[in-house]
Amino acid sequence: MERIFAVPLKGGAVTDVYMLSSMDELSGKLQEYDRSIFISDENASKLVERIPEGAVIIPPGERMKGWDSVSRMLSGALELSLARDGVFIGFGGGVVLDLAAFASSVYMRGARLVLIPTTLLSMVDATLGGKTGFDYKGIKNLVGTFYPAEAVLIVPETLRTLPDSEFRSGLGEVVKHALLSEDTRLWKFLKENHDRIMARDSEALSEMIRLSLEVKIWYITRDPEEKKGIRSALNLGHTFGHALESVNGFSISHGEGVAWGMHMALRAGTALGITPENFREQAFSLLSLYGFDCRYPIPDDGFPAFMKAIHSDKKKKGGSVKFVLMEGQGRPVLTALDDAVVRNAVAGFN
Amino acid sequence: MERIFAVPLKGGAVTDVYMLSSMDELSGKLQEYDRSIFISDENASKLVERIPEGAVIIPPGERMKGWDSVSRMLSGALELSLARDGVFIGFGGGVVLDLAAFASSVYMRGARLVLIPTTLLSMVDATLGGKTGFDYKGIKNLVGTFYPAEAVLIVPETLRTLPDSEFRSGLGEVVKHALLSEDTRLWKFLKENHDRIMARDSEALSEMIRLSLEVKIWYITRDPEEKKGIRSALNLGHTFGHALESVNGFSISHGEGVAWGMHMALRAGTALGITPENFREQAFSLLSLYGFDCRYPIPDDGFPAFMKAIHSDKKKKGGSVKFVLMEGQGRPVLTALDDAVVRNAVAGFN
Repeated sequence: MERIFAVPLKGGAVTDVYMLSSMDELSGKLQEYDRSIFISDENASKLVERIPEGAVIIPPGERMKGWDSVSRMLSGALELSLARDGVFIGFGGGVVLDLAAFASSVYMRGARLVLIPTTLLSMVDATLGGKTGFDYKGIKNLVGTFYPAEAVLIVPETLRTLPDSEFRSGLGEVVKHALLSEDTRLWKFLKENHDRIMARDSEALSEMIRLSLEVKIWYITRDPEEKKGIRSALNLGHTFGHALESVNGFSISHGEGVAWGMHMALRAGTALGITPENFREQAFSLLSLYGFDCRYPIPDDGFPAFMKAIHSDKKKKGGSVKFVLMEGQGRPVLTALDDAVVRNAVAGFN
Repeated sequence: MERIFAVPLKGGAVTDVYMLSSMDELSGKLQEYDRSIFISDENASKLVERIPEGAVIIPPGERMKGWDSVSRMLSGALELSLARDGVFIGFGGGVVLDLAAFASSVYMRGARLVLIPTTLLSMVDATLGGKTGFDYKGIKNLVGTFYPAEAVLIVPETLRTLPDSEFRSGLGEVVKHALLSEDTRLWKFLKENHDRIMARDSEALSEMIRLSLEVKIWYITRDPEEKKGIRSALNLGHTFGHALESVNGFSISHGEGVAWGMHMALRAGTALGITPENFREQAFSLLSLYGFDCRYPIPDDGFPAFMKAIHSDKKKKGGSVKFVLMEGQGRPVLTALDDAVVRNAVAGFN
């Protein structure tokens, strides 16, 4: 077990990120938390040999991401007589981790929190930075808090059994981090190690995750509460992507939406003269290498619904939607976009 | 309107506390918040001439302090299309303010918050320091967050119609602040202005509230997230008091419980040689001046239930309950107490 990062966060909090070489090593580490509640879903919990007593195991899926699941976790903690120094241990993908993190953040106004992501998406995205939450009235993560985990434990071995579609979903965020990175290591690594990565070679995954997290950490430590606009860069591709997910009834994965959205943001950027055309081409090529279809057009008759989804994006602030565009690698800019620019980006394929 | 405090809190946040001379002045101030949701209960909202559109008005009482009320507030904010820069305005006593504050703290991971306390208890206790929350499975404030308001607006005029029992409940906390204060101004003011205070003279109330808040601010600014043990001093009387409230089925007011609990803590302190007897006598005399019955004994056959309530106090950490005892005015100490000491304090009246 190696501590790969100690991420400084708001109010002096620190999240320690550990890379673990096996589930056995994880079992050993979990012994440290004697007053704790284990929280997982029915899929992820299959990776664990022995489910701890008093665990809360919810059904899988986004539809579980509501108050009822949080309530089950709070009740579980009460039944275990956990005090504020009790540890909520989330084990699973983004849904379980966001729920466990939210529950820990409000239990007695804040219990301890340890997160163990078991999907690529949650390893590189959901576990750092302290975003917790659940869906409300059909709006994703409408209810939530900022509450960083004290420790994130990453076991790349858990990715071996991850469904392909979920693995690809995580890769979308990894490519995003490559675009947002000021240096070229992650981009280069992705270009040169495609086969090892797709074969889920543990060593390659470990390195890819480490490089990807480094980029995310760069952004969140500079703006821990999302107040300076720096952290917003991590939304690259998300405004377009969420809208696509939304008009498709969430039938495409988050990562696919983000991958598509990134390309749309790059297209909007080139149209406005913000993004150099060769940067867009390189990014498109990387996305294509990992099998993302980034030329899916929004048909004319679908455009009104698409724009409605754009405008209901919860990131709107003071009434206007800000998009993340790219001036080049590692150089995001926040800007509002005219509907016409959006339309040309998502429909004007040649 | 005068800004009487700018309270520095965690992460650079500041709560501005304003003293307002009338409800008219309040109406003017509220015009500043154009994108906002007004949250109150059926009693407090009678003080307002015109309820703003889209307001959420809940029935009064502790039994409303649950997720369902929070959910109504979140839905209300959604219906008003509030974004993260929308303002949750809580107007009322502790229940409404804690609920509104919790709702604002989780709406889109944190909207703006302005609190307008209309009870003495909430003016001197509930609105500063950022404690939010609601009851869960019969446990008070089991679910909550730390989320300070950006502004607290105090209008002593609202206290004129407050029921006597609620007014006295607030006085219990004011006396607590007098005991916890390092200087004698508040204690002296309470001794010398009993009649004006009980007649609800606005000027006297304004001064009393200001002095009382000064003490609370001293403690919370030194320990904004309740991690250093300093802020725990504000629990003086609360462990005993909550247990009394609990075994009495919450038929006595919070302030009365706290007043009684303070005297029990002083009695335990004198028994252990921690509290000077003459300090206990002076405090007892101040409590008596304001009509608090602090000699109510726990009968022998009620003691087991009382101890059970003590041990289930959510402030227990790592299994032990810490009591706040006093070495003298402004000198709290945290200590565990043997059951025998507790029993003698609450039962051994002569």
